[in-house]
Amino acid sequence: MNFKFSKRVPNLDDDVVGEILKVAGDPEIISFAGGLPAPELFPVEAMHQAADKVFEKYGKDALQYTATIGNVKLRESISHRMQTNKFVHTSIDNICITTGSEQSIDLVAKMMVNEGDVILVEKPTYLCALDVFKSYGAKVVGIDMDEDGMLMDALEAKLTEYSEAKLIYTIPNFQNPTGRTMTADRRQKMVEIAEKHNVVILEDDPYGEIRYSGEVVPPIKHYDENGTVVYMNTFSKILAPGMRLGWIVADKDFIDAFVVMKQSADLHSDNLSQYIVAQYMEDNDLDKHIQSISDEYKKRATMMLKEIDEQFPKGVKHSNPEGGMFIWVEVPGNVNTMDLFYNCVKHNVAFVPGEPFYPDEVIPGTFRMNFSNMKDDQIHEGVRRMAVAINEMM
Amino acid sequence: MNFKFSKRVPNLDDDVVGEILKVAGDPEIISFAGGLPAPELFPVEAMHQAADKVFEKYGKDALQYTATIGNVKLRESISHRMQTNKFVHTSIDNICITTGSEQSIDLVAKMMVNEGDVILVEKPTYLCALDVFKSYGAKVVGIDMDEDGMLMDALEAKLTEYSEAKLIYTIPNFQNPTGRTMTADRRQKMVEIAEKHNVVILEDDPYGEIRYSGEVVPPIKHYDENGTVVYMNTFSKILAPGMRLGWIVADKDFIDAFVVMKQSADLHSDNLSQYIVAQYMEDNDLDKHIQSISDEYKKRATMMLKEIDEQFPKGVKHSNPEGGMFIWVEVPGNVNTMDLFYNCVKHNVAFVPGEPFYPDEVIPGTFRMNFSNMKDDQIHEGVRRMAVAINEMM
Repeated sequence: MNFKFSKRVPNLDDDVVGEILKVAGDPEIISFAGGLPAPELFPVEAMHQAADKVFEKYGKDALQYTATIGNVKLRESISHRMQTNKFVHTSIDNICITTGSEQSIDLVAKMMVNEGDVILVEKPTYLCALDVFKSYGAKVVGIDMDEDGMLMDALEAKLTEYSEAKLIYTIPNFQNPTGRTMTADRRQKMVEIAEKHNVVILEDDPYGEIRYSGEVVPPIKHYDENGTVVYMNTFSKILAPGMRLGWIVADKDFIDAFVVMKQSADLHSDNLSQYIVAQYMEDNDLDKHIQSISDEYKKRATMMLKEIDEQFPKGVKHSNPEGGMFIWVEVPGNVNTMDLFYNCVKHNVAFVPGEPFYPDEVIPGTFRMNFSNMKDDQIHEGVRRMAVAINEMM
Repeated sequence: MNFKFSKRVPNLDDDVVGEILKVAGDPEIISFAGGLPAPELFPVEAMHQAADKVFEKYGKDALQYTATIGNVKLRESISHRMQTNKFVHTSIDNICITTGSEQSIDLVAKMMVNEGDVILVEKPTYLCALDVFKSYGAKVVGIDMDEDGMLMDALEAKLTEYSEAKLIYTIPNFQNPTGRTMTADRRQKMVEIAEKHNVVILEDDPYGEIRYSGEVVPPIKHYDENGTVVYMNTFSKILAPGMRLGWIVADKDFIDAFVVMKQSADLHSDNLSQYIVAQYMEDNDLDKHIQSISDEYKKRATMMLKEIDEQFPKGVKHSNPEGGMFIWVEVPGNVNTMDLFYNCVKHNVAFVPGEPFYPDEVIPGTFRMNFSNMKDDQIHEGVRRMAVAINEMM
């Protein structure tokens, strides 16, 4: 059959990212392209014990349908952590469990955006968020950033230009793809600006707890007194991504509408996994587990930065992340990083070119490197191969 | 904050179904309103054993991200079952795992429907599907049905009237809400009509294997040689709904686009649950388990039908399902079943009024009763209470 798809379906021939990840998936290639957490750090044994308890104590309940908003015990644990680790006072009525961050972004976009509505994002930003926003017909506008995150003057200017903007999407901690962190002052200022312009902030914080240097900065939601900020987080980076569990924290009116939208998307998130994670959090010290992840990622980041400094040609710049999983690299001149990508692949190493992270104007010579899922020898050898390929093109 | 939601968000004050289920959730009330499978039939022990094996053998892999299209072993098992139990020859490349049927409906609607496009459905049909279709701005048109399912003459007439229709949504087996089953002749005819009019059929088959009388009828997909039919099913009714796992079977071109849409919705379905269900299917006889569900539901359906025949006033008609979970009741005259619902609640019994199941014109005096999640004494006493309430209003 010749299918007549809706205009929400992108042209599959233009799936640059799919193509990149496919090429980078070749086992011969050292890939800094993905964004996978290190599986050797997953708490398999503790999760297994939690699952045992769930099957023994709550078997039937965990296998039955549940409320769309999510498991009460899990929301209680999250509410507690939001206070202790995020300095956000909230209640379980303000928390909805989601099927991972991707669903949180998808449903918030579906809720907020009519066709042609404007969403403001960091330039560059998480590429899958861009795909979601475009699938609802949003006009996505990039805001300039520096090493301290989104520039508030630039945000204010764009909000004046696009006065009907619906949403500001931001990743304030160890941003994907740049690894940059927004300062506390800017966070506070962003809430003021958003309130003045009556626009919702969607704060995406998947990496926030994976901090291995510098000082903790409270989330933007911490400065929010009027429900302007919708905060989202996930268990993918601090526990395990396979279970597809995330959450949002928002004003009660927002949660009520979100729950209705989620009901139409998948009724509720996996109930068994919600029970298992809630049990895991009851029986284990999640902070201690996260510390072990941060310690390991610190080693890998430090090593990758050292290798980049030593091996990449002079003039190459990079971000200095204090946490998270990514380093952003800028090669001087007008290097097309798609071409650089294919040259690197010839040398059996891969990364993600900058292009797909940009909502509008592309800054050439930029790309993202992931260090969380690579061992020491792979980092050393991979950066060496990249240096050869970069030298050939500069 | 005063949120400016998109037009996709329904008016929350109009959430009739939410209101019904909330009222029906009162523990004093015998509720025939829900659509829950009987939890005492969940194979808790066998699922626990499968989970143990998964944690022991595949712990890290099951907790890591996976491919959007889903677990290979699970798709192989489904492919095999599609052939043995559904007479559909397919391959794993034509199968995508979903986060339950709700997601399958949501993504197919998102893929196929631009604002204002027409979707044809049985009158009445699954109310959550109607909500999803409306969230994408579809115009939903009802097709008349009789005891043998959707009327093909009526379908052809509507396809002539709405020549640009994008989708026919149908539940051919033990339909929700009517419990009716479409004949083999009509299924074959539906494929012919759909091909002639170049419209996709979305065949929703959650109850198909829960048959306790009559002859098995092949799915519509069995008659499809050109990729016209997108077939969807779920583990919710044959295994456990809490894990939110379903699947679609479709033409490769359709699957390719579907996978891209699913990636933007939740990256992939719960990987741990996919592993557990795949392991369960490897180690257990799912057909035997389904037989035990069917045996129990047969008892409950038979008892409810007998009680209805004996206790409801003369002139009340009902469907005679050969499987599934629902009975459709028609009260003579112009009884408003929302009023009847509130009168029944006074007598501590509940059902779902017909209104929300209708896409356009509502046939008064109709409502749905569920028998899968009720014990014998509840069925007896609940039908008695309903009979009193109906008598008061006729």
